[in-house]
Amino acid sequence: MRKPSIVILGGGYAGLMTATRLQKQLGKDEAQITLINKHDYHYETTWLHEASAGTLHHDRVRYDIASVIDRSKVNFMVATVEEIQSANNKIITDAGEVPYDYLVVALGAESETFGIQGLKEHAFTITNVNQSRRIREHIDLQFATYAAEDEKKPERLTIVVGGAGFTGIEFLGELGNRVPELCREYDIDPKKVHVICVEAAPMILPGFDEELVKYAKSKLESKGVEFRIGTPIKEATETSIIVGKGEEEVEEIKAGTIVWAAGVRGSSLIETSGIENMRARVKVNHDLRAPGLDNVFVIGDCSLIINEEINRPYPPTAQIAMQQGEVVARNLTALVKGQQEGLETFTPDLKGTVCSLGEDDAIGVVFGRKLTGTAASFMKKMVDNRALFLIGGLGLVLKKGKFKFF
Amino acid sequence: MRKPSIVILGGGYAGLMTATRLQKQLGKDEAQITLINKHDYHYETTWLHEASAGTLHHDRVRYDIASVIDRSKVNFMVATVEEIQSANNKIITDAGEVPYDYLVVALGAESETFGIQGLKEHAFTITNVNQSRRIREHIDLQFATYAAEDEKKPERLTIVVGGAGFTGIEFLGELGNRVPELCREYDIDPKKVHVICVEAAPMILPGFDEELVKYAKSKLESKGVEFRIGTPIKEATETSIIVGKGEEEVEEIKAGTIVWAAGVRGSSLIETSGIENMRARVKVNHDLRAPGLDNVFVIGDCSLIINEEINRPYPPTAQIAMQQGEVVARNLTALVKGQQEGLETFTPDLKGTVCSLGEDDAIGVVFGRKLTGTAASFMKKMVDNRALFLIGGLGLVLKKGKFKFF
Repeated sequence: MRKPSIVILGGGYAGLMTATRLQKQLGKDEAQITLINKHDYHYETTWLHEASAGTLHHDRVRYDIASVIDRSKVNFMVATVEEIQSANNKIITDAGEVPYDYLVVALGAESETFGIQGLKEHAFTITNVNQSRRIREHIDLQFATYAAEDEKKPERLTIVVGGAGFTGIEFLGELGNRVPELCREYDIDPKKVHVICVEAAPMILPGFDEELVKYAKSKLESKGVEFRIGTPIKEATETSIIVGKGEEEVEEIKAGTIVWAAGVRGSSLIETSGIENMRARVKVNHDLRAPGLDNVFVIGDCSLIINEEINRPYPPTAQIAMQQGEVVARNLTALVKGQQEGLETFTPDLKGTVCSLGEDDAIGVVFGRKLTGTAASFMKKMVDNRALFLIGGLGLVLKKGKFKFF
Repeated sequence: MRKPSIVILGGGYAGLMTATRLQKQLGKDEAQITLINKHDYHYETTWLHEASAGTLHHDRVRYDIASVIDRSKVNFMVATVEEIQSANNKIITDAGEVPYDYLVVALGAESETFGIQGLKEHAFTITNVNQSRRIREHIDLQFATYAAEDEKKPERLTIVVGGAGFTGIEFLGELGNRVPELCREYDIDPKKVHVICVEAAPMILPGFDEELVKYAKSKLESKGVEFRIGTPIKEATETSIIVGKGEEEVEEIKAGTIVWAAGVRGSSLIETSGIENMRARVKVNHDLRAPGLDNVFVIGDCSLIINEEINRPYPPTAQIAMQQGEVVARNLTALVKGQQEGLETFTPDLKGTVCSLGEDDAIGVVFGRKLTGTAASFMKKMVDNRALFLIGGLGLVLKKGKFKFF
């Protein structure tokens, strides 16, 4: 009898959790498991704001996928997925075609610019290791160039962050620590640096507890962050952004660095896959399968799950992605073992959310309790370590964990 | 009786040596000594190739001038010299006018582009701390951007060094060590990187021993450096250089980084000073005074001294600059003490030359003996430490010296 083949696309939180759980639950002869990822490493998407600001080296943010998978059970393929052909049960990659019996799509998110002119060309996004270290180096060079040039361009020392959601705020928190370091490194007066957060919505961190948001705003402002709330970005140019001001007017803000942290969507590969989707995200069934497809699971940032209490989608988080990976692994195990019905239903188990405000500071709600300052910062590091533990066990925590708690 | 005022322009090897020697030789009441420098730090010009490549942090390459001068005897002024008025015995700076009785011009060298189109705009020069760290950050960003961009521009990984003289070769040696590090840092295949040295002359390191030059060339080639000898740069653009090929043809070499290391001249301030000069360098009298000016000494890279054995000028080196500083300090002491004639004649005492080829490798002739490899590299570090010792004593050597000998 031929072993069924399971193909997992993506080595992020969702995909890697699926692979590491499956390798425990299935015997060598029960299935042929293939994990396809663009790089030979996994990276912590939720830590990228640190690598982007330069407060944490990008090698601390990633680890070899080979170090957490069991090669005797999982065939790990470094390749870029080019097309998902759900009608033909096969994947096209730059390293050849891969047929599947069961597919897990866990390709993660892409940046969403909502059609704002110039953003794609002129703004950076905090989306992967490559982009993060590029942001870090770009900011470094702006400071170095300012120090070296005869006719100084003050806008080199302006960093605009578009978006005051989770990623934007966490990145601003890191910049609050990084800017003083950069000023020392390049002999620049800190007063000359401007870090500006531009947000179209009338508040920062929508959905977060109001008291905590107030704490975050005032802490970031004390670190020099200027907030421009209720201010939509109309356009980005090579050297500036143009923002709306009142009903009709616009204003140009010159900036050497523009980082867009205001929107994500699913993988564009979903849109040509034949899988029903909305903005590249798939509203999955309760068992995490794509609608109408018995052998395709979609998890992580490519999936869309409605929080029925408020009738809005759950935000895409690592916490949910990993929980989905666990459920999919169990459902796949059941299918491979011959069970046809009654697959497990996925229900998010939200343990809380912590938003970092840089070294030693954060805000969060954990198990229903509000936290700020070092207590929240400690919880944030525990959350980060927990992700490592769930995928790679204690060994990975010791190797890549965050232990500088206070 | 009014104390005579001595003004020293520049805190490089020559100027700082003059100041530190004068403060030992003259009493507080004998002269008013003012040292004017653009920055509050001295930097090791001969180590800048390391800071530029990123193999040594720029803070290792500089130290506070305040740490080596005696403030009770030397008034240290951080200011930028704007004009030397030798006819009026005064200096115009951005912090006001400074009159002098005796002047020491030690303003160092500037880059000379020989009118080659585009070089000023598009090429970096290894001329000071600001420029060096800018080169380092620029190269870093090229690698980071290459790794991040979807449509890869291979020329980002091409570094062109114009000039195979001392600075060019030493910089190439450091790049030989730095490029493999950059490739690891940004996940780039080293085979994709091109380091090209373009030199108009038919040989590298003109004036150096032929056998040693051969050694240097083959060692650098084994580190991946490509030499284009007998190839003049005709023009630099934002993304390339255009070089001559044979008599009539030209060739464009695309490059993300262009570093011009082929020519220096004296300070442009000399040209408007009323002091006789050639390309901003002053052919000084035997006692290091400017021709026709009894109270103006010119030393370091702004001075020009002919080696009568070969009827060519001595190259501008730190070794000569420091020796000149010692002689000028003694001559100034004599003048202040009332001696009018018979000032000391300057004669360079060439102890040897060592050209670094990167970590652990060098070539040199020291006390007439040819050296290569670790022996030469050791001597190079001793030469570097000696410069620190002569200006700042053992304390400075221990603080800023190079002790990783093997």
